[in-house]
This record gives sequence, C-alpha cells and structure tokens, in this order.
Amino acid sequence: YHELQRSVGIIGAPFSKGQPRGGVEGGPDRIRAAGLLSRLQHLGCAVKDYGNLMFEDVTVDEPVGTVKGVRAVGSANQRLSEAVQGVKRDGHTAVMLGGDHSLAIGSIHGHSAAVGELSVVWVDAHADINTPLTSYTGNLHGQPMSYLLHELHSKIPVLPNFSWIKPCVSARDLVYIGLRDVDPAEHYILKLLGVKAFSMSEMDRLGVARVMEETCEYLSARGRKPIHLSYDIDAIDPSVTPATGTPVVGGLTYREGVYITEHLCQTGLLSAVDLVEVNPLRGQTEEDIQSTVRTAVDLLLSCFGRLREGNHSLDYSLPVP
Amino acid sequence: YHELQRSVGIIGAPFSKGQPRGGVEGGPDRIRAAGLLSRLQHLGCAVKDYGNLMFEDVTVDEPVGTVKGVRAVGSANQRLSEAVQGVKRDGHTAVMLGGDHSLAIGSIHGHSAAVGELSVVWVDAHADINTPLTSYTGNLHGQPMSYLLHELHSKIPVLPNFSWIKPCVSARDLVYIGLRDVDPAEHYILKLLGVKAFSMSEMDRLGVARVMEETCEYLSARGRKPIHLSYDIDAIDPSVTPATGTPVVGGLTYREGVYITEHLCQTGLLSAVDLVEVNPLRGQTEEDIQSTVRTAVDLLLSCFGRLREGNHSLDYSLPVP
Amino acid sequence: YHELQRSVGIIGAPFSKGQPRGGVEGGPDRIRAAGLLSRLQHLGCAVKDYGNLMFEDVTVDEPVGTVKGVRAVGSANQRLSEAVQGVKRDGHTAVMLGGDHSLAIGSIHGHSAAVGELSVVWVDAHADINTPLTSYTGNLHGQPMSYLLHELHSKIPVLPNFSWIKPCVSARDLVYIGLRDVDPAEHYILKLLGVKAFSMSEMDRLGVARVMEETCEYLSARGRKPIHLSYDIDAIDPSVTPATGTPVVGGLTYREGVYITEHLCQTGLLSAVDLVEVNPLRGQTEEDIQSTVRTAVDLLLSCFGRLREGNHSLDYSLPVP
Ligand SMILES: [Mn+2]
Ligand SMILES: [Mn+2]
Ligand SMILES: [Mn+2]
Ligand SMILES: [Mn+2]
Ligand SMILES: [Mn+2]
Ligand SMILES: [Mn+2]
Repeated sequence: YHELQRSVGIIGAPFSKGQPRGGVEGGPDRIRAAGLLSRLQHLGCAVKDYGNLMFEDVTVDEPVGTVKGVRAVGSANQRLSEAVQGVKRDGHTAVMLGGDHSLAIGSIHGHSAAVGELSVVWVDAHADINTPLTSYTGNLHGQPMSYLLHELHSKIPVLPNFSWIKPCVSARDLVYIGLRDVDPAEHYILKLLGVKAFSMSEMDRLGVARVMEETCEYLSARGRKPIHLSYDIDAIDPSVTPATGTPVVGGLTYREGVYITEHLCQTGLLSAVDLVEVNPLRGQTEEDIQSTVRTAVDLLLSCFGRLREGNHSLDYSLPVP
Repeated sequence: YHELQRSVGIIGAPFSKGQPRGGVEGGPDRIRAAGLLSRLQHLGCAVKDYGNLMFEDVTVDEPVGTVKGVRAVGSANQRLSEAVQGVKRDGHTAVMLGGDHSLAIGSIHGHSAAVGELSVVWVDAHADINTPLTSYTGNLHGQPMSYLLHELHSKIPVLPNFSWIKPCVSARDLVYIGLRDVDPAEHYILKLLGVKAFSMSEMDRLGVARVMEETCEYLSARGRKPIHLSYDIDAIDPSVTPATGTPVVGGLTYREGVYITEHLCQTGLLSAVDLVEVNPLRGQTEEDIQSTVRTAVDLLLSCFGRLREGNHSLDYSLPVP
Repeated sequence: YHELQRSVGIIGAPFSKGQPRGGVEGGPDRIRAAGLLSRLQHLGCAVKDYGNLMFEDVTVDEPVGTVKGVRAVGSANQRLSEAVQGVKRDGHTAVMLGGDHSLAIGSIHGHSAAVGELSVVWVDAHADINTPLTSYTGNLHGQPMSYLLHELHSKIPVLPNFSWIKPCVSARDLVYIGLRDVDPAEHYILKLLGVKAFSMSEMDRLGVARVMEETCEYLSARGRKPIHLSYDIDAIDPSVTPATGTPVVGGLTYREGVYITEHLCQTGLLSAVDLVEVNPLRGQTEEDIQSTVRTAVDLLLSCFGRLREGNHSLDYSLPVP
C-alpha cells in the first residue's frame, strides 16, 4: 500500500487485420477515453503515451494458403516490435493497447529483443497457437504463439513480411490461463510441447489464487525472467466483457480477471502488458461496451498497483480538528 | 484427451404433465436443433437417436388427493422405462431428453431394470422427493425420488398407473447436488434417511471440485455401480438457464455445472443421463432460451468427453511445411 | 434444522440525508412488502414490527465544512439509538431496515448502550470510515465508523447534534468484508489501526467459507461478544442488487452474501442487524428493484435460521397412507 513509483509507456495499436471483424482498431482510443492515463497517474505512476502507431497501408494482400492478411499483419507487427523496443529502451513498463491478438507477435518480439528471455503469461479463452497450416479460419489472431515458440519453428512455412520474425520464447516459459475453446491441433501442440495451461477446468478445480501461485512458482523455477502478460479481454466472461470478437461462455469472473493482474503486479517482474481484442463495435448496447472498456482499464490499473483493499501514499497524514 | 469411443442412445421424452406449465415438451427438439448429435459425433461418439416417445393420450385424469396428472405420468413413465431398457440392451449410454422431471421415474426404473443396482446423482435446485401425501403443489415433477427409494415404499399410497413401479434405489446410493429450495417434508426425509446432499451451502463451503471428489468417493465406497445422472437444468443459476419452469436464485454457475459433468464422465461409470426441465416457452427473450439450450448441450457434451482444455484424436499429426 | 425460537424486533428507518440520492427512504417498506415478516414467522421466529421511525424535520442544515446534513443525521441517529435500545430491552434481536448507512451510528450506539461491548461485522463495498475532515464527498453515509471507534475520537471535530455520540467500538472488535472501493484516507486508517479487513482480494484468495471462519475466530479470540452485523446491500455485486446508490463492480455473489449471514446466524451471537442502502428508485427496471429487495429479504432470513439445505420443525412427522 505504498506510493508506487512505476513508469508506464503506452502504445496504441489500432490494428484489426488479424481477424475479420471491424471495430477492434477502436480499442486504444476507447480505453484511453475511459481515463486510463489519469487513473494510472493518480495511482502514483509516471505515464508516457507514445500515441497510436500508424500502420503501412497494404493494398494487395491475397491469402497465403488459407491465411488472410499476412502482409498487413507482418508489416504492422514489425512496426510494433520497434515501438516496444523503444519503450523498453526508455525504461518503461510497456503497455500495448490492441487491436487484435495477432499484435502479440510484434509486442513479444520487441520486448524480447529489448530485454532478452521472457516469461509469457497468456490470459485468453483461446490458445492462439495454430500454425498457418492448422488454422481452420485463416485468421492470424488465432496463431501468434506459433511464430514465437522456438519449438514450433520447423512447422511454420515462409510467409511474406514474416521473415523478420525469429522465435524468441521457449514452450517452458509460457503459461496459459483461461482456456476453454481450443482447437484439436492446438490441443495436440500443447500436449506435445508440455505447455503449462490452466484451462477453466483447472480454474474451477484450483481456484484463482492457487492458479496464480502455481503460475508464478512454475515460471520462477526457470529463473525470474521479465514477464510479458498478454491479456485477451475474451478471457473474461462475455457477461462482463461482451464487446469482443470471439466471446466464449464460461469465462473468468471480473474478480478472477483482476486477481490475476493484482498478483502479477506483486511479483515486481511485469515488464510488458498487451490488452487486446476490446472491440467497441461489438456488444449490443452502450452499456456492453462500457463494461468491457471499464474492465480493461481496471485490469491495467491492477497491473500497476491498484489494490481492492485500497491504496494510500507513503506520506499520507490524517487531519486532526 | 484421447479419441473417445463412446456410444450414445438418445431418447426424446416430450412430456409435461408432471407440472402445470406448457412448453417443456419442446425441450428434446430444441436441444437436438442446437446440434447435439453432430457435436457428439464430432467428439468421436457413435450416436443413435431413438426419436421422440409417443405417449398415450390420457383423457380422464382427475387428481388423486392433491396429486395431478397421475395416470398420464404413470403411463408415460412406463413407456419411458421400456425405452430406456431397450437403449441399454443395445449397449449405449442412455440420454433422456425431457420433458419434466417426473420422467426420472421411468428413466431410473428402466435403467435399473436393465443393469441392476445404480448410483444416482441428482443435480437440481429441488430434492423432488415429496411423497404424494406431503406435496404442497400436487405436481409429480416434485416427487419422483419418493417412488424410487426402497426406504420410502411404506409412505407411498396406491396410485392409478403406478403399480408397475417398484422401488429400485437405496437412499445410500443417492447424492444430491445443487439444492436450495427444499420443502420441510423433503428436508425431514433427507435427514431421516441420511441422504448425502450437497446443497448450495456445501457448494460454497467446499467448492465444486471437492464436492465432486466427495460425491465419487461416497458412491464408490458402496461399490462402483453404474451412475445414473439426473440433471435438472434448474440446478444452474437462472441468469444462465432462465428458460425453465421453477427457477431459483443462487444456483450453480455455468462452470460448476460443466465441471460436474466433466468429472462424472471421467469416472467411466456414466450409464444414463437425464437432461430435463428445459422449457423453450419460459424465459423472456430468444437469447434466454438459447442460453438455456446451449448450456444443456454443453452439459451433455461434457458427459461424453468434451474437455475445456481441448480434445484431439489419437491419430492427430501436425502438418509441416 | 431444528425449529427456531428466535424473536425479532424490526425497526424501519426511512432516512436518506446521509447521502444525496432520494429513494433510499423507501427501503423499509419495500422490504416489508416483499414478505419479510411472514417469511420470518414461517421460519419459526416471533416477530414484532416496531414500525417506521418518524424523524425530526431539520429545516436549516447548512454544511459544516464539507459535511452535509449534519444536524438531520445527528438527530435521526439519536432517535434510532433510543429505538434500538428499546428493542434490545424487549429481548429481541434488532433488525434495522435503512435508509442509508449513516444510520449505523445510531444503530450501533443504541445496541452498545443496551448490551455493552460488541463485535461489529461490516459487510460493504466501502469502509465508511472517513472522518468529517477526510471525506471527499461530505456524505455522512461514508463516515459512520469514524464516530463509533474509540481510536478515532481525537480526529473527530465537534458537530451540531452529534454531541450525544460516544465512541463505543474498539478497532480490534471490527471486521470488514467485501471492500473494493476504499479512499486513501480510509486505507490509511485501516492500516494505522490494524483493522481486520477481508477485501474482495481476500475473498478471492480465501473463499467465503474461510473468510467467515477467520472472521469468527478473530472476533471470538476477543471474547464472545454480541455481534452487530451492518450489511450494506452494495456489498453484493450490482448484477444482483443494482438498486442502490453507490454500486461498485466486482462484488459478492448472491451465494457469498447469503453464506455470510448463514454462518453468522450459526454463531448464536447475532444481536442486531442493519440492512441498508436498498434504494427502490435506483436500478433501471422493476426487475432490478425486485432482485435487490428479494436479496435483502433472503439475507435477513438467513440471519434467522433459513438454510439452503432446507428446514423443518422438530415436531414434523411424515404422513403414511
Ligand atoms: Mn487471443
Ligand atoms: Mn481469445
Ligand atoms: Mn427436478
Ligand atoms: Mn428443479
Ligand atoms: Mn457501500
Ligand atoms: Mn455502507
């Protein structure tokens, strides 16, 4: 409950071509409009907003096999990787506001390029680990982890604008939380590589507190590496965060969602955070959108020290009559 | 996560005379229309649909004491008992789609007639164990367990069309999960007979994982008998499954509901499943009905091997470039 | 599950001047209209309704510093304190139906005046422990605990109509449950005084059963004092109880809310209960109001013996044919 002296660098990534639904490019501005910056400052954080990235307009982008938007996704993520490297060079904890989850390619790549080996905590209803050859849908937001894992390198074909991507994460440095909609190929990969995964079954069995304890024990057994948290808002139950492209019933409660970030904050190792898949054009009412956006902001505040028990600055003194 | 080789026999039981609200006879077709069969097949199950039962039209059916629809319920359940026996003779796990919960009389009777002694897991907001002499409402969907328990035989009066029913379950082979609306007489009976019951208080105290562990330990201490799961959709919270006749606040979450079936599936003992009280004419919106029906389907898929962590078939192989 | 022989004295306190929103004065009558009295009697309680308090009409009530409604709140609580003393003298467990949470001043004061030292269990999204000098809003419903704690006496200025109030609770006899919106000054006070608090983080970490166990162990280590339960309906999640003035996301589930009262009932020490901040003019639909009011009634029934597993009277006997 001490005054926090964290510094946060925010990158907006208004990009949606890793999936077919328009609107998710509006995420960064909606999340800012909900007061993210002032509330982080109020918590005692130093905040620098790097603004929204401008992405190259890829006009010709035919599918490669079944995979759609390959050149646009490759190019946008290269841009994002550089931006994240800049933020890390400036000494901030990086916050990337998506945009769709294909952006994790550039965010994790850039993070790793700047700081070296990472632990990755992936909070999502989906594993997003299809290869271009296993994806049913051809949407790249369902594939980012496949490009990032050393162990899958031989399964990935050459793709235009993807040549800059080098795998930078070991399967043993990855933990999934919140899975409940996993394709057969993805499930095969998770088992083949022995990836640590807390699906909603494990969440039900262990409870969120033990899941987070086991997550952190598992990761720290490999050395206390900087943590990259990649948080897909669809990890949370659609009754709370409906404004997202691929909602799945049976998700995390608001409270579990926040507990995860509170806990990771307390490790002192959070070095970059993605908050993706907030889509202000999904959801049926304005209240649906607001609930989704407010939850995204609350998750980020917990990443940077907000506690539900309250906070006060170290120099607080109680007035007397 | 291996390929499943289960075989499922589905009986539709479009019957509603165990309670006063029309609509519950539409349950079987709505549940099929939501893709139950194809999704079971997709999981690797062999599925046979025995279609919907045709029930005798009982035109004169005056109340017996306070109890309504006695002759219709007696006759329909006799028909259902025979159908379940046929499905079990054919070697399937029986799935009975209700219809109201009075159908458990025939389903459990037929199941026991085919395979002998059973363990019964009754997942419900209600105990459904009133005798014809204790029922406030006279609705037979609140009474089925009273006809099935050996220990209550002497408390049951003679009823028209009920003479074929012989008690076939011991109180010690019965476990309740989800209770939260229990009549005084029912509570008296549960205590008198020492029935194992996990009310929502116990669910809160122990959590769903320990409830299921204790359920299975308790039952298997009496020998690993085939399990009859009788799942009333009103066990789940009305915020998830509103389209049912007698919703009660404070119910199971979707996740707890699915955890129960995932866990029972893994015992390898599930021999028959009732899924009852889905009423497509209740609920206030189409979304209410869809949420209820989708949940029913998800519960059944978990009974037959669907895991939230994902599934893949044994012969899966990962494509390479 | 035995017949209960509790006696309950109900005081309605239709008072709203501890906060700015009209409507909360309608709480007592809405809660009664939902059947509180008959349902308590049905449980086996002897119930006496002392009716609604009439509060002095304070026409001139200028803010004192930032604090609004000082004279009205002081006067109303003095009246309430006397009424609670009367109910306790008559031998009942006191139930105070609010009205806003500033009424806890009079309710706890009167309770303590009648029975001596108390344990206080404060179930609320908020700590309500601002002093008049720390409050941002100047609303007295955010301050009641500051007037009641011995340890804060020196921090409280003189206020008109507050001179009758003497601190009567020790910080070590107070437990908070449900906190998630705590001001910096309040957080400072909780830490300074070492107040036991189970915020929603602790609820997530420990679960409601262990929270209640630890609450009761903590309090009974100081002697088994009569318990004053002060239950702000906003402790429960706004998805369940939206009709309240200051809803905060991430609250107690209905089930957790009821578990708390079930557990406190079983201590045998519940001596007075406040149920406050039900505001029938908040909430967007009639269903919102009904859900809020029904939950309030269910919480009170659990305070007086209702169990979700069921109840039956000691002299129940099962009818035979
Ligand atoms: Mn994702
Ligand atoms: Mn996702
Ligand atoms: Mn039932
Ligand atoms: Mn039921
Ligand atoms: Mn409050
Ligand atoms: Mn309060």
